[in-house]
Amino acid sequence: MNRIFNFCAGPAALPTAVLERAGAELADWHGKGMSIMEMSHRSKEFVGVAEKAEQDLRDLMLIPDNYKVLFMQGGASSQFAMVPMNLLRGKSTADYINTGQWSSKAIKEAKSFCTVNVVASTEGNNFTSAPSQAELKLNPDAAYVHYTPNETIGGVEFDYIPDTGDVPLVADYSSSILSEKIDVSKFGLIYAGAQKNIGPAGLCVVIVREDLLGDVVAGTPTMFDYKVAADNASMYNTPPTYSWYLAGLVFAWLKEQGGVEGMAEINKRKADRLYSFIDANDFYANPVAKNNRSRMNVPFTLADDALDTVFLEESEQAGLMNLAGYRSVGGMRASIYNAVPEEGVDALIAFMADFAKRHG
Amino acid sequence: MNRIFNFCAGPAALPTAVLERAGAELADWHGKGMSIMEMSHRSKEFVGVAEKAEQDLRDLMLIPDNYKVLFMQGGASSQFAMVPMNLLRGKSTADYINTGQWSSKAIKEAKSFCTVNVVASTEGNNFTSAPSQAELKLNPDAAYVHYTPNETIGGVEFDYIPDTGDVPLVADYSSSILSEKIDVSKFGLIYAGAQKNIGPAGLCVVIVREDLLGDVVAGTPTMFDYKVAADNASMYNTPPTYSWYLAGLVFAWLKEQGGVEGMAEINKRKADRLYSFIDANDFYANPVAKNNRSRMNVPFTLADDALDTVFLEESEQAGLMNLAGYRSVGGMRASIYNAVPEEGVDALIAFMADFAKRHG
Repeated sequence: MNRIFNFCAGPAALPTAVLERAGAELADWHGKGMSIMEMSHRSKEFVGVAEKAEQDLRDLMLIPDNYKVLFMQGGASSQFAMVPMNLLRGKSTADYINTGQWSSKAIKEAKSFCTVNVVASTEGNNFTSAPSQAELKLNPDAAYVHYTPNETIGGVEFDYIPDTGDVPLVADYSSSILSEKIDVSKFGLIYAGAQKNIGPAGLCVVIVREDLLGDVVAGTPTMFDYKVAADNASMYNTPPTYSWYLAGLVFAWLKEQGGVEGMAEINKRKADRLYSFIDANDFYANPVAKNNRSRMNVPFTLADDALDTVFLEESEQAGLMNLAGYRSVGGMRASIYNAVPEEGVDALIAFMADFAKRHG
Repeated sequence: MNRIFNFCAGPAALPTAVLERAGAELADWHGKGMSIMEMSHRSKEFVGVAEKAEQDLRDLMLIPDNYKVLFMQGGASSQFAMVPMNLLRGKSTADYINTGQWSSKAIKEAKSFCTVNVVASTEGNNFTSAPSQAELKLNPDAAYVHYTPNETIGGVEFDYIPDTGDVPLVADYSSSILSEKIDVSKFGLIYAGAQKNIGPAGLCVVIVREDLLGDVVAGTPTMFDYKVAADNASMYNTPPTYSWYLAGLVFAWLKEQGGVEGMAEINKRKADRLYSFIDANDFYANPVAKNNRSRMNVPFTLADDALDTVFLEESEQAGLMNLAGYRSVGGMRASIYNAVPEEGVDALIAFMADFAKRHG
């Protein structure tokens, strides 16, 4: 089978082993004579798949027992509304940290539901860093504090988990969940669109502390109520069963790779190698503060942006796909999620070195 | 390959040809070296898949140009909220027809947003019929009229499209879309969860008349605004790309089968044969008024419900899967959507005849 290296920011590369297994059993799952996607979500077969996926995720992330894991729809963009609708709980303000395009979108949506206090923003340096703990002007009366641990577009990652005291911390972990070990107990709620490090688009994982469930704002759709999802084991209505199944295959694969700790080592090697190469080569540049460089999304520019098109054409010919930067940003971006192997990063670096030699 | 006959109400059977093709190209789509689910939703490859799916659906249903087709998430249960949030447009009441469990759920959700007038209900006969046009007590000031053309659980189907004059007609077509030709121009909005006649769970198709877009109620999440979805070609955020692709394969398959007209003939033969058998055999019964019997979902009871468990065990052994009735209803239900072939219905009838002979 022909398989290239895919640096897409999302929907992103999935492990080849997962895709091969999914393809082989697509039309006849485990000899049952039907696809897993043709089975009732309430069948013992699918419930088994669903429960194993949740348990594997709990094992991988060491999720404490007082947290619910929800398998929802609508992507992180739906969470931007669900978070205030569920977590305001009678309060009228929430704190948000602004580190780029995704936190800005979360802020904009939250403003429909409450007063948003932007307690730190790195807009002044064009979102090329994350604020330090000391820079956060937190409000003790906020319903929660929201931040984006990894900004997919700017390639900016927090190198610490904010301490918000008794105020629940909410994190959009879409682009870095499962890439390293985190202490879930420090969070009130974590959410992550699946299409980067979990599985296919159309699934969104929510991990929420039980005591935060219930008491939504008036006019919240039933489907946006975390408590309804939790009380029904994410099956209030038909969940996205095939995406859930695929996420389960990815979780099982992650366990085989040494879990999140194993992936974290590989991810660190991949990112260190790529950033070291960029820093050592005058033809390429990355603008992000060194301690906030994303291990998942590596934006870089060429010394001459007139060469961008040539770079993209030649890299595609070399089997290195989807290196264009975000449409509103330009330049290049290599997303090196869990499923992008070290060989992919090595091949990218070799291509970049050769390209700089020929065009630099 | 081992393939059985699957009578599940949803997630439901998909065409074997579609599943075989999807399996074969899962890890390497059209020689591109990656899965379609690993591609950016903004890539020319996926946009091509998405646009072809929409065009094929437009061709199949003869959707007029002044209707938008949206590929959304969250199932019909999300539509229960989206419909009032989008279509009230300054009005405060909506008309609902109650013909069973799904219309009841739609009514319950709508009550969070407006005054609901139930303009007809068949609860009095335990939801075993649909009201006639003359029985609808429509309000000319209603923002819209909502009904459920086919009730999946009760197996009750309207044999006409209600005439609501200038008031937009809204239909939850989840379980009968694409099963016969309908005149889309009679509707303001049609929605359908995919997992019965379209594709896998996690996708919901919405067909909406353009002049109804815009002007949502305050506090509507951006992701629940049809106009945002329409203005962004269903890509305001990452759509459920793999489900959209599979829906496209189903639409292409439907065209090969003679389109909706071709399927309608087959569906009529399947339903007629099964109901005729039930009516002719004292061991089985279906309670629904003859003119409202669903062509998609055929509930039936055995003369002795103590035999239900045996019936389910023996039918499974015969490769006839998922014949149990809805969990709160009991009895049996054979869902015979587009993807269930005529041979499946013939095999079911043969089994039922033999079972009645042995146990009747």
